[in-house]
Amino acid sequence: MPTRDIPAVVVSRLPLYLRALCYAQQEGLTTISSQELGRRLGITAAQIRKDLSLFGEFGKQGTGYPVAALIRQLRRILHVDHVWDMALVGVGALGRALLHYQGFARRGFRIALAFDMDPTKIGRRVGAFVVQDVARLEAALRSADIRLGMIATPASAAQEIAERMVQAGVRGILSYAPIHLQLPPDIQVEYIDPVIHLQRMTFYLGAQGRPASADELPGAQPCGHHDEG
Amino acid sequence: MPTRDIPAVVVSRLPLYLRALCYAQQEGLTTISSQELGRRLGITAAQIRKDLSLFGEFGKQGTGYPVAALIRQLRRILHVDHVWDMALVGVGALGRALLHYQGFARRGFRIALAFDMDPTKIGRRVGAFVVQDVARLEAALRSADIRLGMIATPASAAQEIAERMVQAGVRGILSYAPIHLQLPPDIQVEYIDPVIHLQRMTFYLGAQGRPASADELPGAQPCGHHDEG
Repeated sequence: MPTRDIPAVVVSRLPLYLRALCYAQQEGLTTISSQELGRRLGITAAQIRKDLSLFGEFGKQGTGYPVAALIRQLRRILHVDHVWDMALVGVGALGRALLHYQGFARRGFRIALAFDMDPTKIGRRVGAFVVQDVARLEAALRSADIRLGMIATPASAAQEIAERMVQAGVRGILSYAPIHLQLPPDIQVEYIDPVIHLQRMTFYLGAQGRPASADELPGAQPCGHHDEG
Repeated sequence: MPTRDIPAVVVSRLPLYLRALCYAQQEGLTTISSQELGRRLGITAAQIRKDLSLFGEFGKQGTGYPVAALIRQLRRILHVDHVWDMALVGVGALGRALLHYQGFARRGFRIALAFDMDPTKIGRRVGAFVVQDVARLEAALRSADIRLGMIATPASAAQEIAERMVQAGVRGILSYAPIHLQLPPDIQVEYIDPVIHLQRMTFYLGAQGRPASADELPGAQPCGHHDEG
């Protein structure tokens, strides 16, 4: 089935299948049933079989999926059978954590370049990286042929950085800035904002009552978005 | 409409509406149309009107939504008109970034307690926090009446920490550990794993071709999940 015909909700589950299969492989499993995979992911076995059937036949009825072969296939489908170089803009506390994170490389990603606009950070070493001047962003991205960007700047800087990334050839952006980016429709954008996730939970939790000690929200600046430092 | 009858996909959008409304308020807008709100979020105006109509009548036809009133209402609906105290377990690079993050408080959340198992971290100050021994987790959570937990431990520790949080009264967990947690169905769980987001993008980007310089995935440990330090 062509990429464009795969429903987005199916695409969103494929990385979860790959991650769970990798854990299964680490545990020494060579086959895994859709029931067991579903149990590990909180997804029904029927849903998993239906999703994977869009990409062809995997495994035989009754024996489960062959773990190693399905991992290889999912890596091809997700295009992480090779490593993607990424550029990070924003070397605050979050950016530093991303530069130190050891979980990218074996799942198909590598931060290749890190940028900041703060003169006290430019030229300094963070882990294996030397922080570069964001003024050089476009030239450096083009020179390294970077297609993926990560934004860990304050919200106020994110839109401009995203536009400059796209100008320089970036096709996908993972943004940690708590703001929706306005970008051309052919650019892939994903967001990580922990407060969005927390509020999705408190919608349900609040109905169960909250601790009595809870304070009122600070009133003076009711919608203030502090920028991440 | 009772909480349980609101579709989860609608609930997932409500925090995005609140965030966009807060930016609109900061810009000085007192009313906003569903068209303009939709433009800022990449969501259709019809979808926004339909979602919000589940919670009653907001605004008048033709004048748009009253920004301040809708913010107040969404905060009540999401139960973030008061501040939720949270406990963080795992004070590695990511945990430190979360402890320094200034974006929680004005959106309804506050980290109240931070824990680690590493003796070199316990008792040390990180920002405004003194890192506590995770051995004291249950007692400290019960004493502070904590309902929300954040996990920033290695994947290998996350399940045990989550279970202990739940035993101590936590009802919602935001986990940064790249693994699905097995918890009772009445516990709210949200996940943040940047690689999942990156792979959702490379599914689409790979079809456009990748830079020629891309390396093969390291082969020796093909599924290794490095734990976050």
